[in-house]
Amino acid sequence: MPRPTIALLTDFGQRDHYAGAMKGVILTICPDAVLVDITHEIPAHDILTGALELAACYRYFPAGTVFLAVVDPGVGSARRAIAAQCGDYRFVAPDNGVLTAVFADRQPGRLVSITERRYARPTVSRTFEGRDRFAPAAAWLAKGVEVAALGAPLRECVRIDIPVPGLDGDRVTGRVLRVDRFGNLVTNIPRAMVERLLAAGPIEIDVHGHRVPSLVETYAAVPGGALCAVFGSTDTLEIAINGGHAAERLGVGRGAGVEVARSATAVVP
Amino acid sequence: MPRPTIALLTDFGQRDHYAGAMKGVILTICPDAVLVDITHEIPAHDILTGALELAACYRYFPAGTVFLAVVDPGVGSARRAIAAQCGDYRFVAPDNGVLTAVFADRQPGRLVSITERRYARPTVSRTFEGRDRFAPAAAWLAKGVEVAALGAPLRECVRIDIPVPGLDGDRVTGRVLRVDRFGNLVTNIPRAMVERLLAAGPIEIDVHGHRVPSLVETYAAVPGGALCAVFGSTDTLEIAINGGHAAERLGVGRGAGVEVARSATAVVP
Amino acid sequence: MPRPTIALLTDFGQRDHYAGAMKGVILTICPDAVLVDITHEIPAHDILTGALELAACYRYFPAGTVFLAVVDPGVGSARRAIAAQCGDYRFVAPDNGVLTAVFADRQPGRLVSITERRYARPTVSRTFEGRDRFAPAAAWLAKGVEVAALGAPLRECVRIDIPVPGLDGDRVTGRVLRVDRFGNLVTNIPRAMVERLLAAGPIEIDVHGHRVPSLVETYAAVPGGALCAVFGSTDTLEIAINGGHAAERLGVGRGAGVEVARSATAVVP
Repeated sequence: MPRPTIALLTDFGQRDHYAGAMKGVILTICPDAVLVDITHEIPAHDILTGALELAACYRYFPAGTVFLAVVDPGVGSARRAIAAQCGDYRFVAPDNGVLTAVFADRQPGRLVSITERRYARPTVSRTFEGRDRFAPAAAWLAKGVEVAALGAPLRECVRIDIPVPGLDGDRVTGRVLRVDRFGNLVTNIPRAMVERLLAAGPIEIDVHGHRVPSLVETYAAVPGGALCAVFGSTDTLEIAINGGHAAERLGVGRGAGVEVARSATAVVP
Repeated sequence: MPRPTIALLTDFGQRDHYAGAMKGVILTICPDAVLVDITHEIPAHDILTGALELAACYRYFPAGTVFLAVVDPGVGSARRAIAAQCGDYRFVAPDNGVLTAVFADRQPGRLVSITERRYARPTVSRTFEGRDRFAPAAAWLAKGVEVAALGAPLRECVRIDIPVPGLDGDRVTGRVLRVDRFGNLVTNIPRAMVERLLAAGPIEIDVHGHRVPSLVETYAAVPGGALCAVFGSTDTLEIAINGGHAAERLGVGRGAGVEVARSATAVVP
Repeated sequence: MPRPTIALLTDFGQRDHYAGAMKGVILTICPDAVLVDITHEIPAHDILTGALELAACYRYFPAGTVFLAVVDPGVGSARRAIAAQCGDYRFVAPDNGVLTAVFADRQPGRLVSITERRYARPTVSRTFEGRDRFAPAAAWLAKGVEVAALGAPLRECVRIDIPVPGLDGDRVTGRVLRVDRFGNLVTNIPRAMVERLLAAGPIEIDVHGHRVPSLVETYAAVPGGALCAVFGSTDTLEIAINGGHAAERLGVGRGAGVEVARSATAVVP
């Protein structure tokens, strides 16, 4: 039987001992667990970024993986802790929307409020439930406990708004959802929407007032330093500079508007 | 038999290959080891921060864990390398005080100077003993070697001063010991000292001249942006801003004074 | 049989899910893999730094380790993906020179272009081959597939220029190859070259116009704050400040010139 994987995503950073303490708790309960850090560098309290990063990668993990997602501005408050089963994956998180993007992709088959005290540490800190409630719950799931055993079933949980692109005639209007470490501007415009426009003729692409001169297969298809659009690794439109940092060069960040429209003058492709 | 856990805490950062080299050395000696990073982002040469972070989390790890703590401004000098057994835990570190806070919490049952050459790499770099002495020693412990086998017994080791709070009548005077990634100001004032004052009536809390208007159970008990005090996850007084960064907002950092005193005007709670 | 180690070195950073996605892919193929992060903080697109960091640590890993080195400005372009066997180690990387320093140290016994589609994910993103091509190839190697099975043999691969020191009479001229997290200036001048000069008499050491007053065994051999030269953990000359940050204090960075020469006035040692 393979060792169970627990994948962690938090806003705890890596300077403090917080992620380490959670891992110690997990290994105490489930010594066989394989721990994988997705990231601990979600910006503090940024539930939306946490939701998007988790949704972008969970499907690449082995069946049976438990995801422990702790971005939790309401730690210690009355907000619930939840666990969910989605196909072969399980998720443990505060009930604040951090699982919204995963659930949009894959409806949970089972959803519970984590209420069973025996799956928490004996004393629960009101400022660090990651250590005392969420990590133990994830470890018990990895050890074989069923999601349903963690607490009372829920019909619904908190969902956050994740910006979706709009389609108005021949114009798609979207947003930059995240800026990655390379400075690439990852948008919420799916490949299919752009390809539908392209099927009817040439298009133009603008990000925050900057015209993007080409839509190509990958960064290196344009000269070094040139601006381009590609379909990124999550199959959405991405604005990039080959070998450069698009966000800094354009002065554009998360939330910036992106437009894709049919063009009178054949700019792209 | 469970795989042995080795938990690493260093000031090596994560840009360079240094932590990776230590892990390679460990896995070469003890292929079964489960490696957990507590943090590699202790500020360079900051023994006090290393000592505090280690003490804040070691108790959450499985019995049998070996802690490898390398914050080592004296690398290559005559300062000793030490290993200690504290209950079910073992520690390997330079003898410079980085284990002070752990030892204050749990007196070592056994303490040795690591002198046995066979538990080091054949060649020991004078600038990277983490790789050539400390990592091998930790790996051999994880593999089953006894602490006593690593070298000559010691009666004492280097301890550093860790600021302790003072009590003067109805006034507790402490310090900010660390600022975490959320900007929370973690102090050295234990819950019990504050509760003893509270038992006698209302108190007031000041940090570096700023009055803290409330002592609550958790951050979310005050409005977003409001300053508050809580008892943090290590059960000491912590000054925070709900959803904000207290250190930046108050311009307060490590070492700042914190006062808790009985109040004529009932401010807290 | 020991679990196979896969050591990762990338420029993906740790904010995004990219390294996590690669790990998920690896564990899906090879659940027994032990994953070790060397670093994900290679500066974006900096092949030279990636090459140097990898060469500095690979030899400390267990026999059988698979190294997955993804610094890949040409992702999605026609540049090849390669796999190599070097003694007991295996390497998977884009063919862009990131293995140059390893190969200078240890000629590959076998070198192939990774062309076998069955060892990639069914769909390969043109912007994230780390996830879809490199990670699967590394995982299959760890699972027991031979390097030769991954694709067609190659005679040569791309090599980058790595600055080498020059010797002109009694003068060695080298460069700062990297600045580490402590601010130490790691040069390309090997210990042997300096010792050959020293055998003939006193020497002097200069970095970017600053005279380095002493060559010592380790940082702590000089007073706190003093500039010194040592032979670092990769046995090359390193310029440091005891307890300080040489790069910042001297205003010197990567590429700066370093000279070691015989001295009329006995400065060092």
